[in-house]
Amino acid sequence: MNREHCADRRLEAAEQKQSQVVVGLDPRISELPEQLLQEAVEEHGRTAAAAASAILRFNRDVLDAVCGAAVAVKPQIAFYERFGCEGLRAYAQTIREAHTRGLLVIADVKRNDIGSTAEAYAEAHLSGPAAGNWQGAGEFRADALTVNPLFGSDGVRPFLKRAERSGCGVFALVRTSNPSSKEIQDLPCGGRPLYERIGALVEQWGRPYVGSSRYSLLGAVAGATFPEELAALRRIMPHSLFLIPGFGAQGGGVRDVLGAFDRHGRGAVVSSSRDIIYAFRRGPYAEEFGLERWQEAVRSAAERMRQQIWRATHGGGADQGRNSSMSA
Amino acid sequence: MNREHCADRRLEAAEQKQSQVVVGLDPRISELPEQLLQEAVEEHGRTAAAAASAILRFNRDVLDAVCGAAVAVKPQIAFYERFGCEGLRAYAQTIREAHTRGLLVIADVKRNDIGSTAEAYAEAHLSGPAAGNWQGAGEFRADALTVNPLFGSDGVRPFLKRAERSGCGVFALVRTSNPSSKEIQDLPCGGRPLYERIGALVEQWGRPYVGSSRYSLLGAVAGATFPEELAALRRIMPHSLFLIPGFGAQGGGVRDVLGAFDRHGRGAVVSSSRDIIYAFRRGPYAEEFGLERWQEAVRSAAERMRQQIWRATHGGGADQGRNSSMSA
Repeated sequence: MNREHCADRRLEAAEQKQSQVVVGLDPRISELPEQLLQEAVEEHGRTAAAAASAILRFNRDVLDAVCGAAVAVKPQIAFYERFGCEGLRAYAQTIREAHTRGLLVIADVKRNDIGSTAEAYAEAHLSGPAAGNWQGAGEFRADALTVNPLFGSDGVRPFLKRAERSGCGVFALVRTSNPSSKEIQDLPCGGRPLYERIGALVEQWGRPYVGSSRYSLLGAVAGATFPEELAALRRIMPHSLFLIPGFGAQGGGVRDVLGAFDRHGRGAVVSSSRDIIYAFRRGPYAEEFGLERWQEAVRSAAERMRQQIWRATHGGGADQGRNSSMSA
Repeated sequence: MNREHCADRRLEAAEQKQSQVVVGLDPRISELPEQLLQEAVEEHGRTAAAAASAILRFNRDVLDAVCGAAVAVKPQIAFYERFGCEGLRAYAQTIREAHTRGLLVIADVKRNDIGSTAEAYAEAHLSGPAAGNWQGAGEFRADALTVNPLFGSDGVRPFLKRAERSGCGVFALVRTSNPSSKEIQDLPCGGRPLYERIGALVEQWGRPYVGSSRYSLLGAVAGATFPEELAALRRIMPHSLFLIPGFGAQGGGVRDVLGAFDRHGRGAVVSSSRDIIYAFRRGPYAEEFGLERWQEAVRSAAERMRQQIWRATHGGGADQGRNSSMSA
């Protein structure tokens, strides 16, 4: 058994931190603390470099605030790509900063292609040695990535091969949490909705990559807005770790995600972006902390999410025995 | 009617050049002319900067060679992303160089997400003004891009909105040309294979964006390896421009793509990568030109593909009246 198997590694980290929380790093410029943005513009003018610099400073502060409560972060690359090379430099640096704080990084890139093109994406976004060994080529490499499975197994296998070699993970989209997902994903295919068929395929593709934790390094992205479906997918996909977006801002709550966990409270991580990283902008955290103490708002929101989910999946007084150095 | 409508613009360019050829710019390091790579390594060491520099030099020479015969180029971003920020700088510069040579650029990025994330991707990859007007943020912006439609209309509309505002185009994956595409795309959904259902949706999503050419700015990616399917999709999708990959290296020939064109020989562009840009490595072009005269091999291969397809779609002596400045 590969000691560095990704599912095993992620579950181990989750146990240690008593956390199944993934914090989405989706830096929307208009939501950043104004002062931070203003300082970047004063330094660089109204340029992509200013936007990238503000994003990176924000991410650093967010990482400091959430590294106790979160097991991983999930940067959404679109928000960095939008600013061209400058934005992607901030993306690369964000990955490094997350690693120095002991956080796993799930690259939310939803890449998809076949053959040597998929291999190129895998090399770009997953850790490990690479063909040719070009120095400095690995700056986007993360611990796991998201992929879109529409191409079938040809489009997923190159990612799995690289992930296996380097102890990384892959999450394939199975059920997305947006309203129009039903237009394609709910189409009836042989008596079952398409997403269940895709789920069964993902489970099958992942079988050869099951680790000692009984989970595969190929997992599934399954939205939190359709709770019964999540439970049904868990039955169809017993060896797939679930990455559940849509918690909080998109409508999913703790009850909605419970069906994704196994009876040991394992088998899933839950992701939230806006409700954590912009906690200072809305609701009780805005009132309690405000913009002045925005980092504390972020820290509190992440910690509350951690407790909510851990307690719901592990029974009441679940903080006992938690490694206290993790909650700093 | 929007004078800058993308489908209209692309069809106009095709008529003028008498070309339906798209050249894929997939720079595989191991296929580049050895000398070119060697010079880059001598200058930069074995670094991502060397790889990026070799790629850019190669692309420039390819662009010079194909700009007479091709109507557009299609850089596959995975081969640039693989080299991190350095690679993506070469990607951005490639887009600029293509534009200076009068070529349209179709960004083969297959991006997919929803809401503000899809908007961020659209801003990254499609020309036009952008929220916030951050100077220097637009370096990846192209004339069209490819998207993956699995999210449903939520995941495509943000791209269409931006494309409409700025006269760009969008191509949604409908039928991919790889062997395992059948695992998901052929699943029977209500008596029809999934890809036909997706095709019908794409046609429907594109209807509000039909230009004076009768084609929509939302087109479809449909592989050349399944010719009957291509003809069936043309019937289901009368207003969708087709972008047909898989010509040449992946097995599709002229006869295989004919069903995608309308009776005026319009409505599709055909893409080839390896058979054009690495023509000097194999077959008759390798014999005739060899590595020494590799650019001539590329030029001949592109011109031959142009003639083959144009003649097959417009009858015999189709070169009459062609703007000769285009064939330089």
